[in-house]
Amino acid sequence: MTEYIFSDRIAGLKPSAVREILKSTSDPNVVSLAAGNPAPEAFPKEELKTIATKIFNEEPITALQYGITEGYAPLIELLKEYLKKRYNMGTENDELIITSGATQIMDLLTKVLCNEGDVVACENPSFIGSLNCFRSYNCKLLGIDIEEDGINVEQFEEKIKDCKVKFLYTIPNFQNPSGVTLSVEKRQKVYELAKKYDFLVLEDNPYGDLRVEGEDLPTIKSLDTEGRVIYAGTFSKLIAPGIRVGYVLAPKALISKMTVGKQTEDVHTPMFNQLLVYHFMKDYDIDEHINKMSQIYKKKRDLMLSLIDAHLGDKVTYVKPEGGMFVWCKLCNDIDMLTFCKEAVNRKVAVVPGTAFLTDENEKTNYIRLNFSTPTDDDMKKGIKILGDIANGR
Amino acid sequence: MTEYIFSDRIAGLKPSAVREILKSTSDPNVVSLAAGNPAPEAFPKEELKTIATKIFNEEPITALQYGITEGYAPLIELLKEYLKKRYNMGTENDELIITSGATQIMDLLTKVLCNEGDVVACENPSFIGSLNCFRSYNCKLLGIDIEEDGINVEQFEEKIKDCKVKFLYTIPNFQNPSGVTLSVEKRQKVYELAKKYDFLVLEDNPYGDLRVEGEDLPTIKSLDTEGRVIYAGTFSKLIAPGIRVGYVLAPKALISKMTVGKQTEDVHTPMFNQLLVYHFMKDYDIDEHINKMSQIYKKKRDLMLSLIDAHLGDKVTYVKPEGGMFVWCKLCNDIDMLTFCKEAVNRKVAVVPGTAFLTDENEKTNYIRLNFSTPTDDDMKKGIKILGDIANGR
Repeated sequence: MTEYIFSDRIAGLKPSAVREILKSTSDPNVVSLAAGNPAPEAFPKEELKTIATKIFNEEPITALQYGITEGYAPLIELLKEYLKKRYNMGTENDELIITSGATQIMDLLTKVLCNEGDVVACENPSFIGSLNCFRSYNCKLLGIDIEEDGINVEQFEEKIKDCKVKFLYTIPNFQNPSGVTLSVEKRQKVYELAKKYDFLVLEDNPYGDLRVEGEDLPTIKSLDTEGRVIYAGTFSKLIAPGIRVGYVLAPKALISKMTVGKQTEDVHTPMFNQLLVYHFMKDYDIDEHINKMSQIYKKKRDLMLSLIDAHLGDKVTYVKPEGGMFVWCKLCNDIDMLTFCKEAVNRKVAVVPGTAFLTDENEKTNYIRLNFSTPTDDDMKKGIKILGDIANGR
Repeated sequence: MTEYIFSDRIAGLKPSAVREILKSTSDPNVVSLAAGNPAPEAFPKEELKTIATKIFNEEPITALQYGITEGYAPLIELLKEYLKKRYNMGTENDELIITSGATQIMDLLTKVLCNEGDVVACENPSFIGSLNCFRSYNCKLLGIDIEEDGINVEQFEEKIKDCKVKFLYTIPNFQNPSGVTLSVEKRQKVYELAKKYDFLVLEDNPYGDLRVEGEDLPTIKSLDTEGRVIYAGTFSKLIAPGIRVGYVLAPKALISKMTVGKQTEDVHTPMFNQLLVYHFMKDYDIDEHINKMSQIYKKKRDLMLSLIDAHLGDKVTYVKPEGGMFVWCKLCNDIDMLTFCKEAVNRKVAVVPGTAFLTDENEKTNYIRLNFSTPTDDDMKKGIKILGDIANGR
């Protein structure tokens, strides 16, 4: 048989630990607190069904024929208006294109900006999908620690004094996996550092619509006067992830190169899916939908926190997330994290070991990530009770 | 304003000339013979509408939730059976995953195999989207001339004697843009060369379902005993391109790395779109659908050829395509190709200059590509008549 010689960029890349765990937990007897899936009860199923019928009745050819790489023009216009109104962001210097989920944005930006060896600064821990994306271009990851109000900006400045950074990757709201939100002061500070040290900011906001308490904070993009911020948005939580529709608002010069990059990746995001999003945004009350989602997620988060407090109260610490899908729990020192995760799998509960999210996977950590958006209430009760048993040596 | 420094790989990459032409021809007064769109009247609109309703009624969560990167498992199984039955290809050494159109296959294979500077052999001319994809990884393109029965295999062997090739990219059926089909003998010869000179073959078969005369030829993949062939399939012509669903059948070791690459590009191909394809393949008679398509395409091809013969008979030569969507016309020597294309645009007819498809864009050619799948009969008549006027100096 033929032996294959792989490219340098891919040879060292491992499959996402989280996705591998998800695959192994397709066993219906396993309670999964490991997923990163939005709550299915929040999907606007009926609305989408109505829209799908309408699309096939009224504009089937638009939905089925090739489209342009930039995306469906009416959706682009609608989103630019929406983002202006909701977050006051987007200038004449900016443009917006539709992408195949937000993950493609990380990919395209890295593709157009980074040569091998270039440095991407990342919150440490961070979303493994994005970290692996940067790794797939042989970028170096510069990890910055996270505090209760987002990245440690002093440490960040210290580190970039000696190290030219291409861009900072940040998830400012209910970060994955830490659940923390970047404070307003730190958002301003991050933008100032970007100007001072001449780097760009990739602001990834998948969870912004999942706030369950407190007020929306201004986006970093809304502070952008110099064309330094790339804003990554997605409909994976607002509508549903299976449709794979995202969008990126960024300076025109970057968008134009990203469009060229997208042409050779998937030509364009599926037209039917773009029309689905367009009509949902246009024909329905988005604020009302966000309120409805917020109630579902609040109930789930509160249940998760009360269960953790009841069963793991003296064994873990965490920062209470104001939204999103995750609680990032630090196990107390007398528990070994990896042993704990393995024993959980043995007892048919899946959680993600914190190491999966580190910029340097050989680093040590005593954290685990728990997801509250996917499991049913019963599964959450069952799962956390078992974790409590393990933590208490029962 | 910020100045952006782009990566080496993207700095020199130009947007696809064809896509740019398509954008400029959104003018409804322009007759476009430049497109690469399948015939919209062949889309199974009613069937897809029925399936969409069924999906939203019966399995909305499967359609809307995240899926695994490999694709929807029942669709994968169904396709493996289908390909075995139809083309007798796929061994225990092979695996299949679902991709976001076939373009993603060119991207993923290049990503996992090629370092910068590696050589990809390509038919010359070839599909610009794929050529740009290879270019986006800074691969070198080794162009091999095309004859009436596919690439010139003697020239190919001559060239690879001194030049290590990573893989050959070939469109064996009704090639884009040349319309020619690789003969059975040459398919065997290509596979023998792959063994002798130790390279892989990327067999891209977007047009195989669009045969309007003659018999199906064996795929190169069906000859594959050593794990050397990667077969790229798509539903862009069999169903519709706007849904962006493709698939790749290839040796397991390659598929596993391509899956890792896909994780960081778009996580997975949209679930709804995969379900749409699955039910279409499962619930309907595919052979009957292919027959129906074949009748539509045959009528269009025959009309195009008769118009060319009538209006451009002594000004162009071409190889009659047995299927696909294109006629590749060589203008006679007293016509300058670029002047001809520009004059056509002036008279509101768009055609693609042959240079767009060359592995070396600075090469000269006197070819133009005409598309017969997208225009209406009336537009075809109008367009070719105008081209005839130009060619005859009227």
